[in-house]
Amino acid sequence: MNIHIPRGTQDILPGEVEKWQLIEKKARELCEKFQYKEIRTPIFEHTELFLRSVGDTTDIVQKEMYTFQDKGDRSLTLRPEGTASTVRSFVENKMFGYADQPVKLFYMGPMFRYERPQAGRYRQFVQFGVEALGSADPAIDAEVIALAMSIYQSLGLKQLKLIVNSLGDKESRQAHKDALINHFKPRIEEFCSDCQNRLEKNPMRILDCKKDREHELMKSAPSILDFLNEDSKKYFDKVQKYLTDLDIKFEVDPNLVRGLDYYNHTAFEIMSESEGFGAITTLCGGGRYNGLVEELGGPETPGIGFAFSVERFIAALGAEKIDLQMDEGIDCYLVSLGEEAKDYTVGLLHKLRREGFSAERDYLDRKIKTQFKAADRLKAKYVAVLGEDELKANKINLKSMETGEQKEVPLDSFVEEFKSIVKH
Amino acid sequence: MNIHIPRGTQDILPGEVEKWQLIEKKARELCEKFQYKEIRTPIFEHTELFLRSVGDTTDIVQKEMYTFQDKGDRSLTLRPEGTASTVRSFVENKMFGYADQPVKLFYMGPMFRYERPQAGRYRQFVQFGVEALGSADPAIDAEVIALAMSIYQSLGLKQLKLIVNSLGDKESRQAHKDALINHFKPRIEEFCSDCQNRLEKNPMRILDCKKDREHELMKSAPSILDFLNEDSKKYFDKVQKYLTDLDIKFEVDPNLVRGLDYYNHTAFEIMSESEGFGAITTLCGGGRYNGLVEELGGPETPGIGFAFSVERFIAALGAEKIDLQMDEGIDCYLVSLGEEAKDYTVGLLHKLRREGFSAERDYLDRKIKTQFKAADRLKAKYVAVLGEDELKANKINLKSMETGEQKEVPLDSFVEEFKSIVKH
Repeated sequence: MNIHIPRGTQDILPGEVEKWQLIEKKARELCEKFQYKEIRTPIFEHTELFLRSVGDTTDIVQKEMYTFQDKGDRSLTLRPEGTASTVRSFVENKMFGYADQPVKLFYMGPMFRYERPQAGRYRQFVQFGVEALGSADPAIDAEVIALAMSIYQSLGLKQLKLIVNSLGDKESRQAHKDALINHFKPRIEEFCSDCQNRLEKNPMRILDCKKDREHELMKSAPSILDFLNEDSKKYFDKVQKYLTDLDIKFEVDPNLVRGLDYYNHTAFEIMSESEGFGAITTLCGGGRYNGLVEELGGPETPGIGFAFSVERFIAALGAEKIDLQMDEGIDCYLVSLGEEAKDYTVGLLHKLRREGFSAERDYLDRKIKTQFKAADRLKAKYVAVLGEDELKANKINLKSMETGEQKEVPLDSFVEEFKSIVKH
Repeated sequence: MNIHIPRGTQDILPGEVEKWQLIEKKARELCEKFQYKEIRTPIFEHTELFLRSVGDTTDIVQKEMYTFQDKGDRSLTLRPEGTASTVRSFVENKMFGYADQPVKLFYMGPMFRYERPQAGRYRQFVQFGVEALGSADPAIDAEVIALAMSIYQSLGLKQLKLIVNSLGDKESRQAHKDALINHFKPRIEEFCSDCQNRLEKNPMRILDCKKDREHELMKSAPSILDFLNEDSKKYFDKVQKYLTDLDIKFEVDPNLVRGLDYYNHTAFEIMSESEGFGAITTLCGGGRYNGLVEELGGPETPGIGFAFSVERFIAALGAEKIDLQMDEGIDCYLVSLGEEAKDYTVGLLHKLRREGFSAERDYLDRKIKTQFKAADRLKAKYVAVLGEDELKANKINLKSMETGEQKEVPLDSFVEEFKSIVKH
């Protein structure tokens, strides 16, 4: 009986894994330019962290968490997202006291949500995200958005749409909340039970409802933008000005909302506009939050961040038919014939690798012809052939697979020769 | 109330994380030279996988696994090591049918063992490992060992000791097993209860016992090397010859054993000989296994691999006092004064980054002097100062922090100028 991979997860195999590697490499490089530093938090956290930060009325917490007791009877949960852990670490390690502020962090790694598996949705997926903690300058909002866009663009994505919104400050949100309640209350029984529950607690989330999106009251609902007070308006204007300065195109969408209380000011999403990308077009979501650091025991600290799924990134690359061209081919394949010659290539191979070349040989005692086929599959730039005659004559035959040129090279100085041939 | 990190786990923060990054980068690069390709398997697997592969009599399975039921009532376990998942994936994805054989894979990521936390031992740790599946050529044993050594050496570790042993094939092991039982049986009551249990099932593991290591019967115990049959002896001779060809120093230690039935032929460990490294000196363990692929439902396939903990790697670097010198400093810090100038640097900063420079500015409305201090902390190679006067005059002041040289540069062409200055 075979043992299978757990439902909703996937193995990422050679041939595919290079896409993940490349996205991660580009994201890392850009974080270096933008001065975001990596943080690595554990795969699991105390369950309470997510109850407190993600919010105990959300789908994630209510339905999707991998929660379990460890042998010490602690309730642990595999992290469903990265912000909670990052902020927990920020507080626990007193990063608010660092000399360099804001503290700019990125993270990358597996996240876990027990959802119904479907095309492109996994129970374990890789998320990349950043958090900038400690600055309420609208310039950092623009920087965070610019970083997200830069990562997508660095891999060639073009059909992107950036939407931004402002949720305002506390005062603005309260005014908007009151207006929403007044707007929906008279006809709330026409809405789904979720929306009815949301009315008093969090009416903004009604705007986000997938079931009731066609209801006529949706379109006429009061817009947050009409309730922004002076400070909030000024803040949002600055963010938009900076985005324009950075040559980043965007649309303002007043229906882009966030459920949780501590989100405020800037909210943004990046979507793929590529045809055939499917119904869910959001690639990346982010926004500003104040209050989360306090909620987790730290001092009042403004924060902003975003997160995206690497799997959806890859789907977007596919939808735009972007070929990443990752397979470069190895530098040299050593073909050998006869036991002594075969033995000799063990050391030779290692010398090539030690000089920084990617190199390979046969490990299955295959015939010369089959060895050449293996060299072809690995897209070897050069093949070096060592038979018993060559070994006796202290020579090796080097063939360029590109030009077909062949050359006899003294065996003793082969690696040196190879270096000089490949370098020029 | 604050929420703390789960016991036995750690946050890896900027300033430390660079060590993990560097080790992973070097390991990746060397895998590319050696032609090992990355595989990523899920963080959790069906519990049965580890019962079957790691073995249900081991400490790992009996005491140390993070096992839980998911919402679909499956028993899942956070992976305690990487070989089981890799082999499961090899079978499930029918990699035994790939044209390129052996299939050479590496993995890297968090592993989980519920152990008593102590210095240098974590419940979540990062393991790097490789598996070469599909070849029984002793040259691949040497290659795998060479790869492990190369990774350690690439970061400057010198005080390493490689020990190798052969566990022989089935026949050799059976002969040795019989001899061990004869040797220990008459006085087995002098040994610990674990050893008494091991006597009939797996007497080789008695040699590994930490409690009874000083018992006089230990030293006189029959050595596996005296029971190797012709084939096994020939195989082990070849491995040693190849290691010598590769200039890799080693010692043969007949007491290096492996508990599980399907280990055979080559076993090896790499230890740190650095003073003050502590009691547990093993950095890396590996060896050849046949039968594991079959156990998990695949065709008979020989395999060999190793794994090491990145945390112990870092400890060894510390013990040898190797300074990794990772902090290079940013290319440019933009100092600005006055709101208009500050605004202007938002776009300028982005242009620098887009040209591939690492660059930073202030996000806290700090004074010039404090901005310069921030530039110092980030080890900025250049600082560019933009005040209101400069902005009006369409100029910016560029200062080399290395030479102290200053220069006025036209603001419009600053990025172009910066490119030419920094490149030459």
